[in-house]
Formats: sequence, C-alpha cells, structure tokens
Amino acid sequence: MTDLQRGLSSSSAAVFQCMREHVAPMLKGGGGERRLYEAMAYVLEGGGKGLRGFLVLSSSALFDVPRAYALRVAAAVELVHSYSLVHDDLPSMDDDDLRRGRVTCHKRYDEATAILVGDALLTLAFEILAQDKTHPDALVRCRLIESLARKSGAQGMVGGQMADIVAQNGTLASAEITSMQEMKTGALLFFSCVSGGILADAKQADRRALEAYARAIGLAFQIADDILDETGDEKTLGKRAGKDKDAAKATFVALLGLDGAKAKAQELIDEAIAQMARFGKKGQTMCHIAQFIIDRRK
Amino acid sequence: MTDLQRGLSSSSAAVFQCMREHVAPMLKGGGGERRLYEAMAYVLEGGGKGLRGFLVLSSSALFDVPRAYALRVAAAVELVHSYSLVHDDLPSMDDDDLRRGRVTCHKRYDEATAILVGDALLTLAFEILAQDKTHPDALVRCRLIESLARKSGAQGMVGGQMADIVAQNGTLASAEITSMQEMKTGALLFFSCVSGGILADAKQADRRALEAYARAIGLAFQIADDILDETGDEKTLGKRAGKDKDAAKATFVALLGLDGAKAKAQELIDEAIAQMARFGKKGQTMCHIAQFIIDRRK
Repeated sequence: MTDLQRGLSSSSAAVFQCMREHVAPMLKGGGGERRLYEAMAYVLEGGGKGLRGFLVLSSSALFDVPRAYALRVAAAVELVHSYSLVHDDLPSMDDDDLRRGRVTCHKRYDEATAILVGDALLTLAFEILAQDKTHPDALVRCRLIESLARKSGAQGMVGGQMADIVAQNGTLASAEITSMQEMKTGALLFFSCVSGGILADAKQADRRALEAYARAIGLAFQIADDILDETGDEKTLGKRAGKDKDAAKATFVALLGLDGAKAKAQELIDEAIAQMARFGKKGQTMCHIAQFIIDRRK
Repeated sequence: MTDLQRGLSSSSAAVFQCMREHVAPMLKGGGGERRLYEAMAYVLEGGGKGLRGFLVLSSSALFDVPRAYALRVAAAVELVHSYSLVHDDLPSMDDDDLRRGRVTCHKRYDEATAILVGDALLTLAFEILAQDKTHPDALVRCRLIESLARKSGAQGMVGGQMADIVAQNGTLASAEITSMQEMKTGALLFFSCVSGGILADAKQADRRALEAYARAIGLAFQIADDILDETGDEKTLGKRAGKDKDAAKATFVALLGLDGAKAKAQELIDEAIAQMARFGKKGQTMCHIAQFIIDRRK
C-alpha cells in the first residue's frame, strides 16, 4: 500500500464516520420513519472510495484549514455523492443490483425507500454545511452551500445524469461527451477541489490554480472510468463491468480508442500537477491524488 | 373571492414567477440536460395553491421584512414542496397520474426524469437561500438553510413520508398519526410560519408565538386534508379523492369521525388565531390564513 492509498483509506474512514455520526441519533426513534434511518445507515455502512472527501481534506490542508471544519465539508460532499449513487442505481435509471460490492439500497429495501434515502442524504448535506460547527464565518458557509448546490444541481451533477440518460444509444461528438461528463462527474469533483480555498478564503491566484487542477482531474477521472469499464473486472470494481459498451454508451474509449484515451488522461494529470507547484511541498498530496485518479483499479 | 383568496392567489403568482425565473435561464442550453429543464418548467407551470409561500410572505410582513427577501424564501419553500410532490407521485410511492389538475411529471416524461426533477428542485431551493440577494446577513441565510433542511429532511418531511408509507394498511393510534403527520406536512408548514421571524431576527416571544401558531395550523391542515379526501370531489381537488380510504390509511376521520375531526380542527385554528393577538392589526392575514386552512375546498 502506498502512502497515498493509506491517506485515502484513513481519510475515507474518518469522513464516513462523520457521516454516520449524523445518522446514528436518528436510529433512536421508533416510528415508521425508522425504516428510512436504517436504510440511510445501510448505505453509509458500505463506505466508499471517499475520493471526493479526500480532495476536500487535501485542498483544505494546503491552507492549514482546521481539520474539524474540512471533515464536515468532506462529509457533506460524500453525502451528495452517496445520494446520487442511490438514485442512479434505481431501476428507472441505471438499474444496478450491486454497488460498492453490496446489494443496492432499492434491492435491499425497496424503490420508495431508496428514493427517500437519496432525498434525505442530500438534504442532510446542506444541513451540516449551514451549522456553525462547519466554519465560524457564516459567509464562508453560505459560499460553500451555494457552490455545492450549483455543482450538484440542474446545471451540474443532476443535469449531467439527465444528459447521460438521453445520450444512451445515441452517438455524441467529443465536445458533447466532454460537456456531459463535466457536469455528471466533474462538477462534484470541482467543488471538492476548490472547497479548501473557500474554507480558507484563499487569494484569487490560489483559487484559480485549484480550479484549473479541478477541471483537469475531473475530465481525467471520467476517462479513467471509461477505461476501467472496458478493462476492469467486476470483482475488483464492486459493480458490473462492460455495461457502457453493452448500452452502446458514448465513452472516451469508444471515441479515442484505448491508447488514445490513456494518453489524453495522462496529459490532463500532468497539467493538474503543474498547477500545484505554487504550493510547494504542501501540494504533494494533491499531486499524488491526481496521479492516483488514472492509476486506480476501481 | 374573499380578500384572503385574492391575497393567496396574487402571492402564489409572484412566488411561482420567482421560481420560474430561476429555471428560465437553464432553458437556453442545448444538451441532453435540456429535457430536465423542460420537465422542471413543466412542474412549475402548473402553479400551486402556494399556501406555504403565502405563509412566508405573511409571517415576514409581521416584521416589515423587505418583500424581495421574503419572496426568495417563499420560492425556496415552494421548490421543496414541489419536489416532494413530484417524488411522492412516483409509481413506487403514491402512484398518482394527476396533480394540480395536470398529468404528473413521471407520466408526462418518465420516472428517471421525474426523480432527477425532484433532486434538482430540492437543490435549487438551497442555492437560492445561500445567495446574498436572499438577505444581507449570511448568518440569517444559514439559519434559514439549517431550519429548512431540518424540517424537510429525514427528521421532518422525508421521514414523515416514509412513516406514511410504512403505515399503509396498518392501524395507528392517535399519537402515532399525529407524529407522522407533524413530520410529513407539519414540518414544512412550520418552517414557512417561522421563516418571517428568522428573516427579521425577531425577539424570542414573537418567535414562540409563531411556533405555536405553526404547530396548530400544521395539525389542522392535515385534519382538513383527511376531511377533504373523504368529502371532496376529484374535479375540485385536482387529484384522486377517497384514496386514503381505499388504501385503508390511518386518518383523523377514521379515528375521530367526520364531526369529531371538524371540531378538533376548529379548536386548533382558534388556538392559532389567539397566538397572533400580540401582532395587532398586522396579524390579521395570518388569522385569515388559519381559518382558510380548514375552510378550503382543495
């Protein structure tokens, strides 16, 4: 295990612990709503790669933001990511039975419960961000909320998911794939990367560097996902492989070929790493994350 | 048309206009996500009673909060209410074909689109609240967001919807029905009533009065809904009538009988009206709304 993998794993454990701590008190209740809380806990028990949360912690560390603040923002981002997976897995969407190596929420419970679990996790993310424990300055909290909402909403992640569904069985040009993926996956990664700068009220040049880093790794991430869908195996992925090809989805691999896609991804990662030079030694983790994004196996 | 009905109607027009103004710029885009924006616009085109938005405007008027601020908060609440209706109408939930007299979102589009529409409307509510146009003081905006998230999330509206589903075909005691309905319908009405006090940073005694008013009308509202489901006709309601009875749902009418339910509702309304005495003439609209809640026909 590399240092980066150890860092990612311990970050993910801490962030999911923080998420679970917000759900645990609900489980003391006794009414019919208890089913919802159990299903929320089920989804969070599974954990996750925690890449988005790790990006929040690492971008915050660039500016020495207190870890307690960054942890809550990381939890909010992972709650949004988790909700999106629960909804995306539904029969009317991607119709997946497996997620993170476990039975999906709607298979373990039912569709209605899974829809409500997603709604509740999304809402909880904003509740956490609004609380004063997240940052002493309310304006910083509002900026986090506005940015997360924009990136995860109709003109970000949710819009990207819609475009992805519409694109199924269609053929898209390179620019259209890029735009759709920027919304679907890139938007939330973007927020994760820039959130440290928001928490620190960083100067503009530093924020610009984070934004450029974010855009590059966002696109590289999606290309890597397309490559994994083509070459990965189901056991390692914890989800069905080859489904993009089966669905004749528009992917970068279909467009550029496997080697072309790999070269494009590395080019983007080099660009992201170059942006971190201004942070000196403090920027190392962000550089390692960038490289990890295309080296990962799931 | 009474003064109250005119006020409600003009408030609803202004609030839905504000909501539509946030979706309109999205419709200029051209990708696959356009389907999402059209479906969001479709849901908002239908308008709605706008009772929650009217409560925000009226509770804000008690303290002379600028209307521009109150309007955005009202839009946020109605966005949350609209998203909850879109999700509740889904086949795996209440499975309704009609809403506000129109074909429901998932029937007009499809289930996947309707799920995403709900997600996007919910997210937009928080984006609007976080923006500085909503109130110059970021702490006030954070309080609004935290309160709305709490009331609409797992321990509020979403939890209530879960409890309602679990309760179907079951028999609940009076205390359990009350608790479930307080979450499902009461929580968002509660936020609507107290939001004026949050926007005005009102003194504690005034906030307490709004909270007591909110609890009373919240419960009265649900009792009135149960009565309407029993006695109303589909054409006026704009949705299927008698469905609670068909589903053997636990309602106040089933529990107290029609006359008992009506008496209980009037008792609660009298209580709510008494709480508004402290605001003198300025409290009149809030009193009229309280009475309207049990006199309405849909």
